[in-house]
Amino acid sequence: MNFCSDNVAGMAPEILAALASANDGTASSYGADPYTARVEAKLSEIFERRVLAFPVVTGTAANALALSVMAPPYGAIYCHPEAHIMVDECGAPEFYAGGAKLVPIAGAHGKLAADDVAAVLANGRAGDVHHVQPAAISLTQATECGTAYRADEVAAIAEVAKRHQVKLHMDGARFANALRHMNASPADITWKAGVDVLSFGATKNGAMAAEAVIFFDEALAESFAFRRKRAGHLISKMRFVSAQLDAYLEGDLWLRLAAHANDQAAALVAGLKAIPGVELLHPVEANEIFIRLPLNVVAGLRAAGFDFYDWPGAAPGTIRLVTSFATRAEDVAKFVATAKALAA
Amino acid sequence: MNFCSDNVAGMAPEILAALASANDGTASSYGADPYTARVEAKLSEIFERRVLAFPVVTGTAANALALSVMAPPYGAIYCHPEAHIMVDECGAPEFYAGGAKLVPIAGAHGKLAADDVAAVLANGRAGDVHHVQPAAISLTQATECGTAYRADEVAAIAEVAKRHQVKLHMDGARFANALRHMNASPADITWKAGVDVLSFGATKNGAMAAEAVIFFDEALAESFAFRRKRAGHLISKMRFVSAQLDAYLEGDLWLRLAAHANDQAAALVAGLKAIPGVELLHPVEANEIFIRLPLNVVAGLRAAGFDFYDWPGAAPGTIRLVTSFATRAEDVAKFVATAKALAA
Amino acid sequence: MNFCSDNVAGMAPEILAALASANDGTASSYGADPYTARVEAKLSEIFERRVLAFPVVTGTAANALALSVMAPPYGAIYCHPEAHIMVDECGAPEFYAGGAKLVPIAGAHGKLAADDVAAVLANGRAGDVHHVQPAAISLTQATECGTAYRADEVAAIAEVAKRHQVKLHMDGARFANALRHMNASPADITWKAGVDVLSFGATKNGAMAAEAVIFFDEALAESFAFRRKRAGHLISKMRFVSAQLDAYLEGDLWLRLAAHANDQAAALVAGLKAIPGVELLHPVEANEIFIRLPLNVVAGLRAAGFDFYDWPGAAPGTIRLVTSFATRAEDVAKFVATAKALAA
Amino acid sequence: MNFCSDNVAGMAPEILAALASANDGTASSYGADPYTARVEAKLSEIFERRVLAFPVVTGTAANALALSVMAPPYGAIYCHPEAHIMVDECGAPEFYAGGAKLVPIAGAHGKLAADDVAAVLANGRAGDVHHVQPAAISLTQATECGTAYRADEVAAIAEVAKRHQVKLHMDGARFANALRHMNASPADITWKAGVDVLSFGATKNGAMAAEAVIFFDEALAESFAFRRKRAGHLISKMRFVSAQLDAYLEGDLWLRLAAHANDQAAALVAGLKAIPGVELLHPVEANEIFIRLPLNVVAGLRAAGFDFYDWPGAAPGTIRLVTSFATRAEDVAKFVATAKALAA
Repeated sequence: MNFCSDNVAGMAPEILAALASANDGTASSYGADPYTARVEAKLSEIFERRVLAFPVVTGTAANALALSVMAPPYGAIYCHPEAHIMVDECGAPEFYAGGAKLVPIAGAHGKLAADDVAAVLANGRAGDVHHVQPAAISLTQATECGTAYRADEVAAIAEVAKRHQVKLHMDGARFANALRHMNASPADITWKAGVDVLSFGATKNGAMAAEAVIFFDEALAESFAFRRKRAGHLISKMRFVSAQLDAYLEGDLWLRLAAHANDQAAALVAGLKAIPGVELLHPVEANEIFIRLPLNVVAGLRAAGFDFYDWPGAAPGTIRLVTSFATRAEDVAKFVATAKALAA
Repeated sequence: MNFCSDNVAGMAPEILAALASANDGTASSYGADPYTARVEAKLSEIFERRVLAFPVVTGTAANALALSVMAPPYGAIYCHPEAHIMVDECGAPEFYAGGAKLVPIAGAHGKLAADDVAAVLANGRAGDVHHVQPAAISLTQATECGTAYRADEVAAIAEVAKRHQVKLHMDGARFANALRHMNASPADITWKAGVDVLSFGATKNGAMAAEAVIFFDEALAESFAFRRKRAGHLISKMRFVSAQLDAYLEGDLWLRLAAHANDQAAALVAGLKAIPGVELLHPVEANEIFIRLPLNVVAGLRAAGFDFYDWPGAAPGTIRLVTSFATRAEDVAKFVATAKALAA
Repeated sequence: MNFCSDNVAGMAPEILAALASANDGTASSYGADPYTARVEAKLSEIFERRVLAFPVVTGTAANALALSVMAPPYGAIYCHPEAHIMVDECGAPEFYAGGAKLVPIAGAHGKLAADDVAAVLANGRAGDVHHVQPAAISLTQATECGTAYRADEVAAIAEVAKRHQVKLHMDGARFANALRHMNASPADITWKAGVDVLSFGATKNGAMAAEAVIFFDEALAESFAFRRKRAGHLISKMRFVSAQLDAYLEGDLWLRLAAHANDQAAALVAGLKAIPGVELLHPVEANEIFIRLPLNVVAGLRAAGFDFYDWPGAAPGTIRLVTSFATRAEDVAKFVATAKALAA
Repeated sequence: MNFCSDNVAGMAPEILAALASANDGTASSYGADPYTARVEAKLSEIFERRVLAFPVVTGTAANALALSVMAPPYGAIYCHPEAHIMVDECGAPEFYAGGAKLVPIAGAHGKLAADDVAAVLANGRAGDVHHVQPAAISLTQATECGTAYRADEVAAIAEVAKRHQVKLHMDGARFANALRHMNASPADITWKAGVDVLSFGATKNGAMAAEAVIFFDEALAESFAFRRKRAGHLISKMRFVSAQLDAYLEGDLWLRLAAHANDQAAALVAGLKAIPGVELLHPVEANEIFIRLPLNVVAGLRAAGFDFYDWPGAAPGTIRLVTSFATRAEDVAKFVATAKALAA
């Protein structure tokens, strides 16, 4: 029973079926196939406007490629100090953007606050050749703390971005989870709020290896196809990446998968909060829980066969639990019951 | 009936089945799964020595990442002017290697000749700070002309490489096709002949999206994992890439798939050569045919529903035909019959 | 009367004379001249061991080139958040090191503390492919706050560096000023304390445009000459850069120039401290003063013809004053007298 | 008596005097000084239009920085196979342009021919993501063979460039020599013929270390200042670079210096051509001579104290002779007399 990450799960059955179905016959390579076209059309419908969408196979590639067209090599990209692009991509954004600099802006619960961004950009030294130049802001939706940006929060940051002529990127590795939590529309929390480019994640939410870089600012996409190719991220048999996304978007599968993961997280946290002395580090607004449990409970859960990570940099007993589309309700119930028994 | 490329085919059924099978339950992410370990073990057995193997999803990524650890940013990488890394990767090797320079060495039928390599390296200006420094040689097996390097040809080039202390890379996007053509052993045409790093292709030969970078020189692999991650090429649900390779290598599937593709190419060329006035540009030693046909034959084949590419830079009527594991014998027979009828 | 920076001054007369003298006749280009050899020999003597020294023309080039051989593209370089390499080089280290990441470690008065470095490196996640890898620490001597690292402070940080197998760089743009302040030996505060590579500055202290990258760890220098050339920093008529350094090092000129600058700073601060309500932000241990004066004093000094910078991010009235080898004692006296009169 | 290169000479006396003169008092750093402004004004006058000019200290920096704003990382830069940027800069253009590819186009006497450029660009595969994208053409004036492009030759290449929407760069390391040879106007052989950016060399023609990157296409200059800074090429005491250029341009000094060098080359070649059996490899249209002499003459000249380079890749006895502003007529006469005596 593995709560380490949503990427320990496999594929949703519908997505596996889509791979099998897409395997019929020949198809033009490198994206000139009907699946890829259909994905762009579906995303345009879902986002209520024409978008340009480029499938890739990892979130790191999606983020790094997206940022490489949003910031010049001498640019500054502002993000939360715990952002995936800052901490967990081994410098991919710097590599792809030719040495651009990621500048951290602290904020509670993994989120940037518009006022803090405004304060930093007010000292951004635009035009000063000695200093990297303000270029882009990157938000994570849901954040690394499992929280979600509301549309008005995104819009407030976007307003700062526009004022300083910097672009706004959203790392949506867990976009579906955040969206489902808020019952918002995809358009409302992205381009209508001022997002220029979205890394639209599917892998963590039931795909095998599929993400889409979605451009709301089409001018930014001009060089993207070249950059994707020379990064080795133009998959030759692209139909199999697009077929995943096609199935993912069909009939709201993506939202149902996210709803399931979120529901399991909600059930987990509801159960665990009843244990005396537990401390929830962040509101649970997606499918991640950061919680401090008594040490004997943590040890006992592991002994009982549950896998999860201790959270670095936090008090002893602090763990992260991640649910997914594949998390079973009975495992959640068992986790809670085991924890309660250990705490008793 | 599509003879454009081997990447217009889908997956071999065994590989699709492997994906379905791998979808059972959870697995550790980022390569810490049993499939990935098994692939390395199988490759070690196939190559008759311990190897380090890193799965990636495109040949361009395999080549560019491999070369990035074989050449410094100020290095020269020698290759054929028609090499995929030179022509068809939109500058990926230069990007990954931090601006290294690809230096062309011409040769007949897509192959480098050891004497030519020796002559260029004799003027390589090693130690001269004004000049990029000799770092690596890259061979393509099978070549872009559909020809294959014999073990002694590789060894002769490797001897030059060793003498000049440069590393030897093999782009094996169609490694299986070349190997099967020669009935050589994998070891004989790689490390025993002096190859340090091999881009071992599977995608063109029946996988969905799977290649392995294989290190015979283990010291070169030291930074590879970091470079792969920061390139966005560390797939989170890696088991699905490795499961493809696992099935590909099981029970000589890879060799049977290549044998089928090669056989179809042989049948095609045998049939077409009987047509008066055709000209074969290169020996057919894998699954690619470069041939000049009468213009009316070319037009007639297209009208009959056959897809293939005109070959740029050659005389009118010159086309490329590529067969794959999925090419049907009846389509080959029909192609030949149609061509003969048109030429009659 | 310009107290903006030590780079508003020209050349020391001895250095101009050296340029004139070096202009006699022909000399081999690109550093194969007697001046360049002599500089390396003099530096070896001054540092009491054989060193490798590479002249360049800017401190930014010295730092970025030095760090490019100390950190791989996926490396982390630790430095103070106010370090020149972090703030004032428009991303040069990231550019030269192929996208390496600069990681800030806060510290009082512009200095890193060994304990803080140790705490960060203890969480450096060495070997974790998701994270940039600990590679180098960079200290500034004198710091951006005008303070100096004592030999024992450097040694304590070096001990942490060695324990974590990271390299230690010193940005010595104002090395002479720090050294002179402490009356230390060059060896004691560099290689004897564990520094691997030193950016040895001369420009701010009386040269026209001359710095030397000095390697105490000779193995690190292996690729330096190539990297310098491909950065366009191998000056063809190198004798004129080396002649500056040659004169700078001759007969302790460099120390006398620094002593003069330090003495003027000491006189300035001594005078200004007598004014009621002034606040000195940092100890004055080189040739820079960061001080808060009454607003009317600041305005009045400017009206009297004194140039200097308001210091960003500090309380109103906070200014930076920099003295140089060329600062005249009478201008210092006049500055102090004017300030006192305004404050009275 | 050194004929190895024009960079073995020192500074013209007027330029040394300018350094001494510029050393008076303080000046704003980083280019905000009156010398730098004056250089831009003088160049605007000389080129008969407003230009933007950025001083740097090496030709390699000038070229690589210029090309970095003319080609994206996935761009192709076309040049002669013997171009300095291709052969002699250790990969600087690739480094600065983030991995762009230099594509050679052969041509007689070091020159590109418009027809050859047109043929290559016709196959440039613009818009094809697999291929680096046509971005810029770079000409060398005078070429590495000592020949000069006439205005109509430049214009013919520019016409091809414009048709394919690629930019035109001129490496003018020996611009003055070529210009003087043709008695052309600076405007005629640059922007009036279609050049967008010029690396305007002064170092080889009597400066110490000074070049200017001149933009005729001002839009291209937008990011230049940032790129120069982060390359470490923004000299802090810039007045000393600009003072060189200021003196260089004053009263046609630059043309007089070039005329002297050209005249010495003309005298040399006139004398040597009289020797039976000599072969001149290229027309002498600047200050470089490529000539094959009898082997005993070559050896005898060296024994007599003359320094020069054997030319790699040419028949034995082929040497390069370079004259400069400082070459003395008596040394030329002695060289010729010695050669004639040896040949007799």
